[in-house]
Amino acid sequence: MSHSVPQSSVRFPAGARIKVGIVGGTGYTGVELLRLLAAHPVAQVDVITSRAEEGKSVESLFPNLRGHYSGLCFSSPQNDALLACDVIFFATPHGVAQAAAGELLQAGATIIDLSADFRLRDVPLWERWYQHQHAAPEWVSQAVYGLPEWNREAIKTANLIACPGCYPTSILLGFKPLVQAGVVDLDHLVASSASGASGAGRGASVAMLQTEIGNSFKAYGVPGHRHLPEIEQGLADFIGQREKVSLTFVPHLLPISRGIHSTLFARLTQSDVDLQALYEAAYVNEPFVDVLPAGAHPEMRTVLGTNYCRMAVHQPQGRDMVVVTVIEDNLTKGASGQAIQNMNIRFGLDERLGLDQIALLP
Amino acid sequence: MSHSVPQSSVRFPAGARIKVGIVGGTGYTGVELLRLLAAHPVAQVDVITSRAEEGKSVESLFPNLRGHYSGLCFSSPQNDALLACDVIFFATPHGVAQAAAGELLQAGATIIDLSADFRLRDVPLWERWYQHQHAAPEWVSQAVYGLPEWNREAIKTANLIACPGCYPTSILLGFKPLVQAGVVDLDHLVASSASGASGAGRGASVAMLQTEIGNSFKAYGVPGHRHLPEIEQGLADFIGQREKVSLTFVPHLLPISRGIHSTLFARLTQSDVDLQALYEAAYVNEPFVDVLPAGAHPEMRTVLGTNYCRMAVHQPQGRDMVVVTVIEDNLTKGASGQAIQNMNIRFGLDERLGLDQIALLP
Amino acid sequence: MSHSVPQSSVRFPAGARIKVGIVGGTGYTGVELLRLLAAHPVAQVDVITSRAEEGKSVESLFPNLRGHYSGLCFSSPQNDALLACDVIFFATPHGVAQAAAGELLQAGATIIDLSADFRLRDVPLWERWYQHQHAAPEWVSQAVYGLPEWNREAIKTANLIACPGCYPTSILLGFKPLVQAGVVDLDHLVASSASGASGAGRGASVAMLQTEIGNSFKAYGVPGHRHLPEIEQGLADFIGQREKVSLTFVPHLLPISRGIHSTLFARLTQSDVDLQALYEAAYVNEPFVDVLPAGAHPEMRTVLGTNYCRMAVHQPQGRDMVVVTVIEDNLTKGASGQAIQNMNIRFGLDERLGLDQIALLP
Amino acid sequence: MSHSVPQSSVRFPAGARIKVGIVGGTGYTGVELLRLLAAHPVAQVDVITSRAEEGKSVESLFPNLRGHYSGLCFSSPQNDALLACDVIFFATPHGVAQAAAGELLQAGATIIDLSADFRLRDVPLWERWYQHQHAAPEWVSQAVYGLPEWNREAIKTANLIACPGCYPTSILLGFKPLVQAGVVDLDHLVASSASGASGAGRGASVAMLQTEIGNSFKAYGVPGHRHLPEIEQGLADFIGQREKVSLTFVPHLLPISRGIHSTLFARLTQSDVDLQALYEAAYVNEPFVDVLPAGAHPEMRTVLGTNYCRMAVHQPQGRDMVVVTVIEDNLTKGASGQAIQNMNIRFGLDERLGLDQIALLP
Repeated sequence: MSHSVPQSSVRFPAGARIKVGIVGGTGYTGVELLRLLAAHPVAQVDVITSRAEEGKSVESLFPNLRGHYSGLCFSSPQNDALLACDVIFFATPHGVAQAAAGELLQAGATIIDLSADFRLRDVPLWERWYQHQHAAPEWVSQAVYGLPEWNREAIKTANLIACPGCYPTSILLGFKPLVQAGVVDLDHLVASSASGASGAGRGASVAMLQTEIGNSFKAYGVPGHRHLPEIEQGLADFIGQREKVSLTFVPHLLPISRGIHSTLFARLTQSDVDLQALYEAAYVNEPFVDVLPAGAHPEMRTVLGTNYCRMAVHQPQGRDMVVVTVIEDNLTKGASGQAIQNMNIRFGLDERLGLDQIALLP
Repeated sequence: MSHSVPQSSVRFPAGARIKVGIVGGTGYTGVELLRLLAAHPVAQVDVITSRAEEGKSVESLFPNLRGHYSGLCFSSPQNDALLACDVIFFATPHGVAQAAAGELLQAGATIIDLSADFRLRDVPLWERWYQHQHAAPEWVSQAVYGLPEWNREAIKTANLIACPGCYPTSILLGFKPLVQAGVVDLDHLVASSASGASGAGRGASVAMLQTEIGNSFKAYGVPGHRHLPEIEQGLADFIGQREKVSLTFVPHLLPISRGIHSTLFARLTQSDVDLQALYEAAYVNEPFVDVLPAGAHPEMRTVLGTNYCRMAVHQPQGRDMVVVTVIEDNLTKGASGQAIQNMNIRFGLDERLGLDQIALLP
Repeated sequence: MSHSVPQSSVRFPAGARIKVGIVGGTGYTGVELLRLLAAHPVAQVDVITSRAEEGKSVESLFPNLRGHYSGLCFSSPQNDALLACDVIFFATPHGVAQAAAGELLQAGATIIDLSADFRLRDVPLWERWYQHQHAAPEWVSQAVYGLPEWNREAIKTANLIACPGCYPTSILLGFKPLVQAGVVDLDHLVASSASGASGAGRGASVAMLQTEIGNSFKAYGVPGHRHLPEIEQGLADFIGQREKVSLTFVPHLLPISRGIHSTLFARLTQSDVDLQALYEAAYVNEPFVDVLPAGAHPEMRTVLGTNYCRMAVHQPQGRDMVVVTVIEDNLTKGASGQAIQNMNIRFGLDERLGLDQIALLP
Repeated sequence: MSHSVPQSSVRFPAGARIKVGIVGGTGYTGVELLRLLAAHPVAQVDVITSRAEEGKSVESLFPNLRGHYSGLCFSSPQNDALLACDVIFFATPHGVAQAAAGELLQAGATIIDLSADFRLRDVPLWERWYQHQHAAPEWVSQAVYGLPEWNREAIKTANLIACPGCYPTSILLGFKPLVQAGVVDLDHLVASSASGASGAGRGASVAMLQTEIGNSFKAYGVPGHRHLPEIEQGLADFIGQREKVSLTFVPHLLPISRGIHSTLFARLTQSDVDLQALYEAAYVNEPFVDVLPAGAHPEMRTVLGTNYCRMAVHQPQGRDMVVVTVIEDNLTKGASGQAIQNMNIRFGLDERLGLDQIALLP
């Protein structure tokens, strides 16, 4: 990995600080934003909201932050306080950002939404999958899908950035070179993914107890997972929506807390494709996508806590099926890290700022 | 699950005991044989061999067995002692059974081999994948592939039973109804499997330390895993070797000790197949194959320590891809439990004898 | 471990079955009772109650039981149905058994309570620790504390058996030889215990999510845990309540589902005590207490899913502190297994019936 | 935690870099040094040695480092190359540093040893516990025990720093306020500790396989662990070796990779000690020791990957026993992080440099 990093025109005044507001910071993407922003040289968290934890210090709710957020407490969400921030992150379940975004955007806010609210351009499709009437359909078309490796230019000027889902990030980045090269059967793509339990959030539930998942593994959502239409939209975008792309997507639940591993299968429609070269060329300039040498297998632990997406490409037995294995941390590159990467791009900073963590080993 | 159990002609004299010998009992399939046979009403372990642990009691090496194997010690392998047994299990790495089997078989032994030595009928293919010259090619054709749900009749009279590999058991049972019904594209089958770490055995290694795999997940062996030719042989057997079957197989390593989950993908070549009915009919009489109700997802933990193979079949979004999810315990149905099931069949017993364990929950 | 098993006068008619009722069978001690009773040769579950899951089959709630409880469904609790049973297990949170027990006992029922309701003879003490007014104080004195290794004779005729808590079982059995021998300082006993997460039950909570405990370890309840007065009562019972025994008890939460490990510390008040001989003699006739050879360390996994309590005793550096390490499965010997052991004793059966499981390894 | 950080006289020239050499960098303390030093603003790794991996890049052995150590390869150990460094870390098993240190020290090197070689001042005691003749007894008296919270002044000028063991760091810091205040019985201190598996290192072994420890928990080394004399030496140092301190130390093995939790017990010899105030005062100026509010319990995960030692103090039931619970990461504050803290102190830097990581949650 040696990268010539994409230069963005630095529009943020030197010496200034980015004032950050976080809506709904009591979940796992919220605490991950706090962890990452504590190490960011330019951004600082001014406001973090939570109705349930109003008045409580973030250090008492999340003791890993002790010593890093002295004085910061959860407050009740107030538009005034949020509008005093340069950027507002929504780290909320779907439905919250769409209810609040309109007023904030009209007042000039820059919003980076980590939820699913603005990911799908097809509002009826969104409403079908999320079983929820969209509260701000008029803003959907203004949202920029925040996958930097695809949409960097649009992100630079976006006021509403819809961060990709965790599974979609890994699957879109893994399939992108193949789909753009036009060398695979787009009707029968397969993604077999596995995620740590933090993908389900921090809500109380029997199903996510340690005792229910700690010594097990299972597929779930096989009949249909909400990330499916998002991934299919993204894959079709890669070819300008010239044709429909059809994916079979099976997520699995791992007995650990963090990380996503996606194993992708596609039938090659051309022979003699140099897959290794294709992937290396596709990502040579990307600071957070790391293509492993031929024959390697990415281990999930090597990206935990980092913003890297690491992958390898194989053509087993020289047959006509290509296999791509992709890893990321669902809470970092799959959520809060990518959100900060988007913030960096949006504010004209080096997009790697604050994102240089190294995964623990072991 | 209510089963009319297949009746085998009871040839073993009432009141008699099956004398069991185990070659190489210090690995995980060995201790699993001991665990299961301790609960078997008819079989008893008379001999267990290990050069390295000669003279040591099995209870001191495996404290979970304390109170169940008083007096049984590992002995150096001796053909005389083994030939005094009614059945000899080989729980050894590949290469050992083939070196010893000829002499024992000629002397009239019944051998149940848990290793890979006699699984492939194509000896040169075996030698290519295992990088080892086969020591008993003349016995290969006499071996019966010990998958009861496919080969029950042949197992009843076999003197050399080659127990299937752990991955192959789950994948063959999962694909069998589809392949036999002739409703899927046999050129592009996909199996994405995940296994607990016990599949790698009990040898000292850095790669299998808790610190190396305990908080991770990865694919491995993508360029080629030794179970691939075994699975492809078995799949082609299901259709009488009328045509070649091509599988893309990707195994993954789970951060837990036991269990296999296989997620199978196949393109339907026919519409209007009632997949749920197909699977239920295929396994209605099988005591150890459990087809879940439509829409369910098998959880790996529900079969750990048991001989069950549990599965569910899905047709996501009603498209032309079928997804089958299959679970088993790699050491039980995937190894030692299936070996005992084979022993029961071979000796004319109810094949469920000694195999009625229930998985822990949680 | 070779045991001459204590013989109880077999009062239960040969060929008869023990009809079992379970109140509140949707928690972890409930499903553990079902797992164990499925293998019991004499007992069968006729009734299992749950208001929340009324009408649902136990196999659908607990898929590990598929094939073993065909037809059994949760029913709403009804005294008539329960009174038709020979024995009623309460696998409920504290407060439930005490509310129901009086009427059932007056009607002649035999109750085995797995909850804390009848463990403490001192009702005001119970009410202080559980912050709950006791609903059946008049029955407390009739309850027999169901620790077979201490109370076997009383259990044989008891109609209300209060099964010990999970931590108390391990700590009482571990300290019993020392306390009874009068060789340690009873004012400064220390127990440092660690439990799997199933000890907290199957209720939805944030604190017990996999993501909260899966990669961590902590002490909890240091200022005071409800098992403390129960243990101190039991320890003083061992010496006929001649003097008060004072224990410092610190429980810890392990990132796994099952199992308890207690490390006990006591100051020796005598020199030249043969600790190994003391422990071996104390438990030579106990079928479920296993004293390891001198110098050994019990591994928790060797008892998971079994009714064994396994221990070792050490005198480090020959100094005046004795260390006892004890393991058990909190849901088996620490709850449901011990409850069945009590049932066996109460009904004049071999107390090992249905309790011959062997722990998985690995 | 708000700290007035101890100021050391800055002796290292502004703008200069500390050239670092690491001997034996292929183990877990080695890769942890690399992870931490990659984030250090002043230090850079020039040399890393390993005979076994000579010529291999560190990024290929440790893929978590990809992108951070381009070009750095393991080299065969050479004194010339090491002596060109400003500081040499030994991240080796015991026996290695003592064999090499003399020549390097005589040549003017500054050595920070992470092994046990120079921790005990009593050479015969060292030789008895490590079963190894000490190769450099003449250097033992010159070594400074590298516990900054005890020895900060001496570390500033030391050329041979012996970093404390992982267990000793947590136990010494946890007991220090009590021992120095003279309020506990020093003859019967108890430490019940639990460590992640990385404490055993990265060597191939059966005992540390995931399958052997992944679903278990056990005490080990109860008869005697090598850290015992080190801890007792340190405890006695706290009171100027005026009297002997006697500790009963029981380590346990957790089924996870990193982290140490120590639960300490001591009998109070005085009443009316304000323990909370004692602990807060003891560590108010320490940047890496964090005393939790009264009643709290430190969770191990909140320090993983960080240099914090976090603790809480309790007096259960107001009795005469004090309980202190302490957490640290065995590889960071317990090894490589503390080594870098020592380097910072030794070179006159802010001792927090490069050590501002925040633990992942979840």
